[in-house]
Amino acid sequence: METPKLSVTPYKGTRDFYPRDMKLRNWFFGKIRKTLEDSCFDEYDGPMLESLDLYAAKSGEELAKEQTYNFTDRGGRNLAIRPEMTPTVARMVAGKMGELNYPLKWFCISNMYRYERPQRGRLREFWQLNVDIFGCDTYEADLDVIQSAIDVLLAYGADESMFQVHINNRRFFNDAIAAIANTDAEGSKRVSKVVDRKNKITREAYEAAMTELGLSAEQIARIDALYEMDVREATALCPDSTGAKELTALFDALEATGLAKYCVFDFGIIRGLDYYTGTVFEVFDLSPENNRAMFGGGRYDNLVGLFVKNAKISGVGYGMGDVTLENFLVTHNLVPDLDNEGIKILVTRFDDVPYEKYTALVKSLRDAGLTASLYLGQKKFGKQIDYAVRDHYSHVVIMGGDELASGTVKVKNLATREENSVELDKLSAFFA
Amino acid sequence: METPKLSVTPYKGTRDFYPRDMKLRNWFFGKIRKTLEDSCFDEYDGPMLESLDLYAAKSGEELAKEQTYNFTDRGGRNLAIRPEMTPTVARMVAGKMGELNYPLKWFCISNMYRYERPQRGRLREFWQLNVDIFGCDTYEADLDVIQSAIDVLLAYGADESMFQVHINNRRFFNDAIAAIANTDAEGSKRVSKVVDRKNKITREAYEAAMTELGLSAEQIARIDALYEMDVREATALCPDSTGAKELTALFDALEATGLAKYCVFDFGIIRGLDYYTGTVFEVFDLSPENNRAMFGGGRYDNLVGLFVKNAKISGVGYGMGDVTLENFLVTHNLVPDLDNEGIKILVTRFDDVPYEKYTALVKSLRDAGLTASLYLGQKKFGKQIDYAVRDHYSHVVIMGGDELASGTVKVKNLATREENSVELDKLSAFFA
Repeated sequence: METPKLSVTPYKGTRDFYPRDMKLRNWFFGKIRKTLEDSCFDEYDGPMLESLDLYAAKSGEELAKEQTYNFTDRGGRNLAIRPEMTPTVARMVAGKMGELNYPLKWFCISNMYRYERPQRGRLREFWQLNVDIFGCDTYEADLDVIQSAIDVLLAYGADESMFQVHINNRRFFNDAIAAIANTDAEGSKRVSKVVDRKNKITREAYEAAMTELGLSAEQIARIDALYEMDVREATALCPDSTGAKELTALFDALEATGLAKYCVFDFGIIRGLDYYTGTVFEVFDLSPENNRAMFGGGRYDNLVGLFVKNAKISGVGYGMGDVTLENFLVTHNLVPDLDNEGIKILVTRFDDVPYEKYTALVKSLRDAGLTASLYLGQKKFGKQIDYAVRDHYSHVVIMGGDELASGTVKVKNLATREENSVELDKLSAFFA
Repeated sequence: METPKLSVTPYKGTRDFYPRDMKLRNWFFGKIRKTLEDSCFDEYDGPMLESLDLYAAKSGEELAKEQTYNFTDRGGRNLAIRPEMTPTVARMVAGKMGELNYPLKWFCISNMYRYERPQRGRLREFWQLNVDIFGCDTYEADLDVIQSAIDVLLAYGADESMFQVHINNRRFFNDAIAAIANTDAEGSKRVSKVVDRKNKITREAYEAAMTELGLSAEQIARIDALYEMDVREATALCPDSTGAKELTALFDALEATGLAKYCVFDFGIIRGLDYYTGTVFEVFDLSPENNRAMFGGGRYDNLVGLFVKNAKISGVGYGMGDVTLENFLVTHNLVPDLDNEGIKILVTRFDDVPYEKYTALVKSLRDAGLTASLYLGQKKFGKQIDYAVRDHYSHVVIMGGDELASGTVKVKNLATREENSVELDKLSAFFA
């Protein structure tokens, strides 16, 4: 019986990383890692499988079940493949709460799965950079987190013409609404909920909802005006609000550190209404064909409290997906030609030279710190050169019987086609 | 109602990687990556989720279901979290079979899941280095793969007193058994199966089974003798066997490349009886307290044939788990003190100095390529120093009002306790 053949296609919404793709991924992640380590962020990671409870506690059981790949193991445990990193990192902080050295500056670059319909910029398997600072409640941590996002983009060669950080503060948002609506806390919460949906509903529906909550046309206009204000004008509306003070301190610090040119106040940035508690921000791609929020984050309180009674450790952070980042870098032509970087040497092989002469040659190159390999197998010379070209070797080293007798080799630069005759014992120096 | 608190423990058989653990993991993987890239291996990766069929086709459906985390998605697809990399890489090679440039020298360092009882050296989530060469049928590829395993261990500082590569050849194994048993192909296959179980059953049971298959005491003794022979003696038993010729070519090449001192012929290395077809090897830890096979691999034929009709691309490779590797390195004291490597500077902070003086100072250090961070928040000086010590900073830079006025800073080396007064504009040079 003939075995039915298996499909070569990866599972829907996931990717195979062939060497060329992987080189790009390593370049992406290498830049991130170096940038964050240089500013003293520490990398961490957690397991791919977590208890489903972790996500149910944050998002509700129904949503958690709908958005994750989840199943029950043979011990009856409900598990999910992690769809995000935040519950894992909160669990880890809670697990060593008393031993850790605060403030924590942590990051990870991990893969995760979301059960959703694959579309541009959204896949079922993706990698995400997560940056968080735990245990510092003031603007310095907000600044450090926003700076890390800017630094990562700058490390790729981006500049202020390509991206912009839009910043708001959830406490300020609530206080400004309350100051204008002039209702009790409960009333202004209801108004906030409508304002949160402002861009998702028609203008008519928005005004009707606001009027129903008792707001006058003048009050609605004053809220509209907030979207056009800079941070000084906006915070002047309720200068005694904690949120206004936080915003002012953050923008002063952005100014003082030369980061103001990348940043703008934006009353329209709200993010998860029940989740974020202070500074919130989103990073926008400024390219005309792709003008949209790429990623964002902000300050959230006390996720650790899900694990440890009466614990209170606030955090501020963001998550940036690899697909979004790659789209941004491609749009702005920031991906270099990774195929043709550095020296990579193929030593070709002939029948009339003993094998050990070749292996010794490769060893001498590698001992000198060079990237080098011997052609595997015994194909014709032309095939070996084709192999080297297709695999983006920069040079081939040719040592036939004649060369061996004279103690020299030929070195061919595959880019320039230049050929040199080099004494065998000066070969490593030739590449230095 | 009080929310029940969630567990802080990671799922059974998985690990949290706190920054210290992650630093170790990055060091492990960095060594591997550098070693393999220096010899022109290319990194790849595939998705965590694959069709369950992939594993069922290789190991049978029952075993595949038992050993993997598997479930059905909402589209009715049977999925498994990958328990190994080989089916994925075979699928990837099959998917671009006509476009790829052979021989392929590929590796990956990926996490995978196996559903088994966690025990020493075995976890449910682990990382595995997979190295494979596809499309070269001769000893050169076997040598290159074995050399890569040796090179990785040497890169960690291991030497020939710590590990040894045991090598056999499955074709030679069959031919030697056939030559001694002197039966037809079917008969010698039955004998091979018994020999494969030699170390798993009692001597009495072994001899009884061999006798039942018609072998004399003298034939049994001749097979026993193979376990004591070196490669020359063993291959002399059936010099015309393809397997014997492959073994001889491989050992000649190991000799010629100076790798013989790490390697030994071992007739007892068989590995999966139905899977491997040529060279097989296992790498042993030589430490008395941990003397056992750490990992192994060999030549297998035509996994690509599971996907593409009439395709035939042979491969040779191995998989090395991170837990085994870590045990080996710890046993042999090969893990360096990663906490205290290089310069990492904390700039401490006082109230009487404007914030932007500090951020400018940190920026100047980072622009000079140094790893530096400003203390976040406004704790007392002593707390800031404690933080630096616990977080393994090498230096603190101290700039209070007096220092600022005089244009100098104090630099304290936390290891030596040495303190220097340095002019502000010479600070980067001080660390150079």
